[in-house]
Amino acid sequence: MNIGLDMMGGDFAPLEAVKGLKQFLSTASGMTHIYCIGDEAQVQPLLEEHQVASPNLHLVHAPEVIGYHEHPTKALKEKQRSSIAIGFHLLATGKIDAFISAGNTGAMLVGAMFSIKPIEGVLRPCVSGVVPKSNGETGVILDVGLNADCKPEQLNQFAVLGSLYAQHILNVANPKVGLLNVGEEEGKGNLLAQATFPILKENSQINFVGNMEGRDIFGTKTDVIVCDGFTGNIILKMAESVYDLAQLRNFEQDAYFNRFHYENYGGSPVLGVAKPVILGHGISSANAFNNMLVLAGQMIESDICTKMAESFKAS
Amino acid sequence: MNIGLDMMGGDFAPLEAVKGLKQFLSTASGMTHIYCIGDEAQVQPLLEEHQVASPNLHLVHAPEVIGYHEHPTKALKEKQRSSIAIGFHLLATGKIDAFISAGNTGAMLVGAMFSIKPIEGVLRPCVSGVVPKSNGETGVILDVGLNADCKPEQLNQFAVLGSLYAQHILNVANPKVGLLNVGEEEGKGNLLAQATFPILKENSQINFVGNMEGRDIFGTKTDVIVCDGFTGNIILKMAESVYDLAQLRNFEQDAYFNRFHYENYGGSPVLGVAKPVILGHGISSANAFNNMLVLAGQMIESDICTKMAESFKAS
Repeated sequence: MNIGLDMMGGDFAPLEAVKGLKQFLSTASGMTHIYCIGDEAQVQPLLEEHQVASPNLHLVHAPEVIGYHEHPTKALKEKQRSSIAIGFHLLATGKIDAFISAGNTGAMLVGAMFSIKPIEGVLRPCVSGVVPKSNGETGVILDVGLNADCKPEQLNQFAVLGSLYAQHILNVANPKVGLLNVGEEEGKGNLLAQATFPILKENSQINFVGNMEGRDIFGTKTDVIVCDGFTGNIILKMAESVYDLAQLRNFEQDAYFNRFHYENYGGSPVLGVAKPVILGHGISSANAFNNMLVLAGQMIESDICTKMAESFKAS
Repeated sequence: MNIGLDMMGGDFAPLEAVKGLKQFLSTASGMTHIYCIGDEAQVQPLLEEHQVASPNLHLVHAPEVIGYHEHPTKALKEKQRSSIAIGFHLLATGKIDAFISAGNTGAMLVGAMFSIKPIEGVLRPCVSGVVPKSNGETGVILDVGLNADCKPEQLNQFAVLGSLYAQHILNVANPKVGLLNVGEEEGKGNLLAQATFPILKENSQINFVGNMEGRDIFGTKTDVIVCDGFTGNIILKMAESVYDLAQLRNFEQDAYFNRFHYENYGGSPVLGVAKPVILGHGISSANAFNNMLVLAGQMIESDICTKMAESFKAS
């Protein structure tokens, strides 16, 4: 398999990307090839300095970088030689099987939507987040940011995408899907949740367990939490801040609260597009890059995108 | 001042209400009269057993109770001799100046809306929640549940109500108001947030500091967090679950995480109605009842509802 990694994305790139890469290569199988996309003049010396060398490592020169504050569509069009533009080109042409970047999120999403395209039948792709469950298991919440306003049919599709992700990436058999809401009974909630409930209930592709509340997010009721991207994004960022609070309170060593730390899950996959695309956190560390590479490998190996495409073909 | 307390509301009533009352009376001024509304046969022996006696204590017999699962409007109409119905009757007729109950939330809201009525000019009252800020201060978030779907003008009113609450109850001078959103820049967010931003910016009654994100909820950026009741309710319940998680992780003694515990703030005031109404948590303990009584006293003393009414008259 071939994974493309944007070496220039993230506040601490390319150094942390190089260090994460080194971590990854020390455990990866010989079958995994990594395409490091970035400015050769910056990346090559760092690779040498950190003794990152492997016949499976391929440096792809990208002389341009898309900054955090650039307009996504405009930057992607004008900076064809940027690491993100080249990454999507390699992904679209099949040279790589997954693309990872901790760079400009907007540009990553535009690339995912227009270079890679949504899976046929998917109304809107979404971004998923990791949920550290109180019993030690891991759940998924989606959408966490791509679609601030949603329609019931979109939430229904997120439920399918999230179920497949939980099944094939998190290895949860028959994942329980919950609709994030303000009450347990059917009929509760805002107009969106009220309209979504009966559609999820009717959907035989998923194991819908009903509404769930804010207090159930980290609990064991569900493996897949479905919500609009506005609510999901706020929850995701609030959960991240809980990690910071726990740090402030000197809970550095707590195994559970540490699972709230972004670097321990690495990145957020875009679901519903034809190929694996992973968004990294702006402050991605070596650990985060390593974990994103691991996740990319899992997504390629499980052929999750094809499974998602088949599921939407069937329905 | 006269405070009405529903002795029958909450999973552990009337015992915890009696114990909370005892706590409160040990510190309250002689000017505060409490009207205990509940079943005499149950409450009187407990008051005696716990040696709760004061010339300022008045037992009001209410032979009926509205259960948690009863239909709010129907129950209020049919059970005129229930503690909640009697409480609102006393509040509406001026016999008491504030009413507290940890009973059926729906019935409390119906009572607040129809016995007490919204302040003139207020489109929709809301429920506010407490935000334990990382710097030790306390903020307020609203709405946390009454209005699952909101219009921009409602959020604008929540901003005014929350500012007055922060000023007069939390003693924050010139409270900073933030709009809960998924990005910092104007123009970000769902349709509601996008439409609300310019209205808040124009509102000279508040100190609007712009958008805030999920990660800023417990931070120092804002004193008043404005959001729709769907998002706010999920956040409130998620924050409560963080307390439970911290407990699970043996952080019982942590002063910060303990501030997430509902009993330390007691209850959630309904804002935008003509008189102070406080909703208690279903699992209210003695501490929670005591804190609700303290809050009711502050709301009466500061004459917050009149200040709110004046503010809406002026605008």
